[in-house]
Amino acid sequence: MTDAPLTDLSRRSVLGAAGVAGLAALAVPATPADAQPLGRQGRLPKRVDVVVVGAGLAGLVATDGLARAGVDVLCVEARRRVGGRVLNHHLDGGGVIESGGAFIGPTQDRIAALAKRFGVRTFLEYNDGNSVYVSSTTGRMEYSGTVPPDPTILPDAATLLTRIDQMASEIDVSAPWAHPSARDWDAMSLGEFIRRNAVNSSGVGNLIKSWTQPGFGADPDELSLLYTLWYVACSGNEENVGTFSRNSDTADGAQERRFVKGSQTVPIRLARELGDHVALGAAVRTIEQRHGGVLVHTRRGTVRAKRVIVAAPPPLVLDIEWYPRLPTRRLQLMRHLDMGQLMKCDAVYKTPFWRDAGLNGFGVNDSGAARAVFDNSPASGDPGVLLAFVGGQTWRTYGPMSKDERREAVLAGFAAMFGDEALEPLDYVEHDWTKEQWTRGGPTAFHAPGTMVDFGPAIRTPFGRVHWAGTETATYWSGYMDGAVRSGERAAREVRATL
Amino acid sequence: MTDAPLTDLSRRSVLGAAGVAGLAALAVPATPADAQPLGRQGRLPKRVDVVVVGAGLAGLVATDGLARAGVDVLCVEARRRVGGRVLNHHLDGGGVIESGGAFIGPTQDRIAALAKRFGVRTFLEYNDGNSVYVSSTTGRMEYSGTVPPDPTILPDAATLLTRIDQMASEIDVSAPWAHPSARDWDAMSLGEFIRRNAVNSSGVGNLIKSWTQPGFGADPDELSLLYTLWYVACSGNEENVGTFSRNSDTADGAQERRFVKGSQTVPIRLARELGDHVALGAAVRTIEQRHGGVLVHTRRGTVRAKRVIVAAPPPLVLDIEWYPRLPTRRLQLMRHLDMGQLMKCDAVYKTPFWRDAGLNGFGVNDSGAARAVFDNSPASGDPGVLLAFVGGQTWRTYGPMSKDERREAVLAGFAAMFGDEALEPLDYVEHDWTKEQWTRGGPTAFHAPGTMVDFGPAIRTPFGRVHWAGTETATYWSGYMDGAVRSGERAAREVRATL
Repeated sequence: MTDAPLTDLSRRSVLGAAGVAGLAALAVPATPADAQPLGRQGRLPKRVDVVVVGAGLAGLVATDGLARAGVDVLCVEARRRVGGRVLNHHLDGGGVIESGGAFIGPTQDRIAALAKRFGVRTFLEYNDGNSVYVSSTTGRMEYSGTVPPDPTILPDAATLLTRIDQMASEIDVSAPWAHPSARDWDAMSLGEFIRRNAVNSSGVGNLIKSWTQPGFGADPDELSLLYTLWYVACSGNEENVGTFSRNSDTADGAQERRFVKGSQTVPIRLARELGDHVALGAAVRTIEQRHGGVLVHTRRGTVRAKRVIVAAPPPLVLDIEWYPRLPTRRLQLMRHLDMGQLMKCDAVYKTPFWRDAGLNGFGVNDSGAARAVFDNSPASGDPGVLLAFVGGQTWRTYGPMSKDERREAVLAGFAAMFGDEALEPLDYVEHDWTKEQWTRGGPTAFHAPGTMVDFGPAIRTPFGRVHWAGTETATYWSGYMDGAVRSGERAAREVRATL
Repeated sequence: MTDAPLTDLSRRSVLGAAGVAGLAALAVPATPADAQPLGRQGRLPKRVDVVVVGAGLAGLVATDGLARAGVDVLCVEARRRVGGRVLNHHLDGGGVIESGGAFIGPTQDRIAALAKRFGVRTFLEYNDGNSVYVSSTTGRMEYSGTVPPDPTILPDAATLLTRIDQMASEIDVSAPWAHPSARDWDAMSLGEFIRRNAVNSSGVGNLIKSWTQPGFGADPDELSLLYTLWYVACSGNEENVGTFSRNSDTADGAQERRFVKGSQTVPIRLARELGDHVALGAAVRTIEQRHGGVLVHTRRGTVRAKRVIVAAPPPLVLDIEWYPRLPTRRLQLMRHLDMGQLMKCDAVYKTPFWRDAGLNGFGVNDSGAARAVFDNSPASGDPGVLLAFVGGQTWRTYGPMSKDERREAVLAGFAAMFGDEALEPLDYVEHDWTKEQWTRGGPTAFHAPGTMVDFGPAIRTPFGRVHWAGTETATYWSGYMDGAVRSGERAAREVRATL
């Protein structure tokens, strides 16, 4: 092996002009704030102390933690933008909504601190009035609280959520596999747990999809029970144990607030402060560990480092060419963390008309394209925006349709909750995360049954000089922006201790 | 986009000398028959009618089907050998065993016909005398038939296997997702089905691992019930419906026979006959469809074709760079076909001493490293060889150990069945399929719960001018050599109809 310059720099250039056009499309700034070139221009340095792979929240925070400690660090990002799964969308008529991660709630202290540092304010998710529940059997009802008071479902839901909270309270968030029942709970899907413990398991199971489809991009039958319990347990911080309602609710829950200028403002401002520590359009192809160092081969050249932090979703870790190869446990862990399937579909209206009818804009439907609906209007309430999460099984049904067909189905779902006025939006915008080359799904990667106990323990184990960040590696608010921030802080501490 | 020569030919050359050494190691012929260079030497043709990707059984058979019809076809293979998951191992003292797919049984007509065409004879897997069952609770017993007569397990096993056969008999092997109960069965893992239908579910579930670990490289909790039923249903042909015992047994089952010179002799002889239609060391990096044709960019250059057949395991399909991108359904299907985790561990003895004790060499253990054991001696019975499949959960426990530790555990398992003589083999050889770069696991790729109904239907759907082969695409004996052959025949027919 030699130090010869990387010979595969042009890997993607086989796409020729069309490829360049594709890249140009990617390069369209996601927000006006992106309009000025972000990050390091020109050649990358040949040598730094630490390379961070990925400029999502986790990678940027890790970079920040190191840069502020005086470490020579470079964050390389494949896209021409920062933020990863956090992405603003500027509405044609003005106003910002999010196409990716959006909400912030109590105990999400680390994303809160970061937003505060950059002066990004939050506002309460609109929550005055009732929620709406649409059942294909019992019809439409308005309600308040966590669970719709459907008499065919409520008793089961109450029992299940109590049990889930109780079991989750026993989980060590940093080692769920150490629980005495870990293997039994991992053997079981959340779906099986529901079938075992509910009288009307199909009814309550269907309702719970309105939580798992947005929350995991997956259905109860796809999720390891142990993983699900851990995810609930993670919905807290060092002082507050996670609960189902903390995870799922708007009031005092994970959906309590949003960011006034859109959540992506946080990573964008952080990246601006980091300046030359960030390099965009620098997809990593190969990571080589040898001679006491690491060579990171990127689209923009090769950088040598003492340590590397990889802050990329699992499928992208597998796409990197590793030399030496990833250890078997790490490889299998990455292969067994499945990215969810999720898209966000937003309809824009002149006003949030549902508010006038005493509705908060939140709704659950046991069928159709709009299973979980939120008021996604900007802080000003101008325009009014309704958001449907289309995830898991619902994504599999509606995702492959044409945009027009899907639009019709989503609007019909909004109308079933909020009336026919919902059928005539000013605009309809959607974002399918399964189609994002540099994410491959959303909102997070999860464990199918039978894989977390065996593969999970490798989640934060460094591979030689390579360390791991990303929301999937967090022990609080994994799957959320807060988890991403925490993971970046932890990885930075981990690497600093080695330098 | 231009027709410029591929610019990323050297993608793996970043590995430099070590990479070349690695390739040289790969190039060590797996069998003496491989000693003469196999396949096309020198430059690849610029243009053919059809490119087949992968020279496992499926790809070679597809190539053969086209070549014999006068089609100008080229099969490109990443490795320096053919056979894919079919791999001979030449014992130091003489004699051939298989490191990969080995067995052939009734209704596996297509692999049988292919072997016959090339004069590769089969012999009956040694099956005289009793099998051995080792239980950590009830101790060691000898038995005959499909299921050990453990009184704590037998009633449950009998009930379960009857139900599995009955349900499997209702499955349309070409469209398991069309069964009226498909979604319910897909929602459930095999493990949940066992827990629902067995009295001593942990006992019988553990026993069934001795079938799923070798058969899928996975545990019952990882397998969709629908997928499992389909797999059982596939264990047949147009005239004979598949059954559990046909799938799992030696007598009149899938493990009935082996090949006299090792199963890899079949693909090797087929490849020799195909001559210049096969090109080794030609890993495919990119497949581009445009202007009514397909460009296949390989390590040995770019070939233009009218049609392409991809006959590679799902993880490798994802590794190819696709332009345009894979359709979402295909991408998600490939991501949701999980390769099993499996290694084969063989101990070589001067003689098959267990036979003298009236034992057939087959054994099942409810714990330890050797959960499913076969007599793997060559046809001559000289030397004697015992084989342990180490798969799924057992692989996760023993796979990461050092070879010495694992050897000790495997030999202890053999000794528990066949006595202390098993502790002193002449040789010990093993093959871990999870570590094979060009396979990534074994024996097959399977569906976790909740994914087959939604993603399965895309399994044979062509993507433009790209068609799909491989044992996972078969409708009979999927996961087996016979399924690979059938899939290659089907893909060749499909493509011929388009030319």
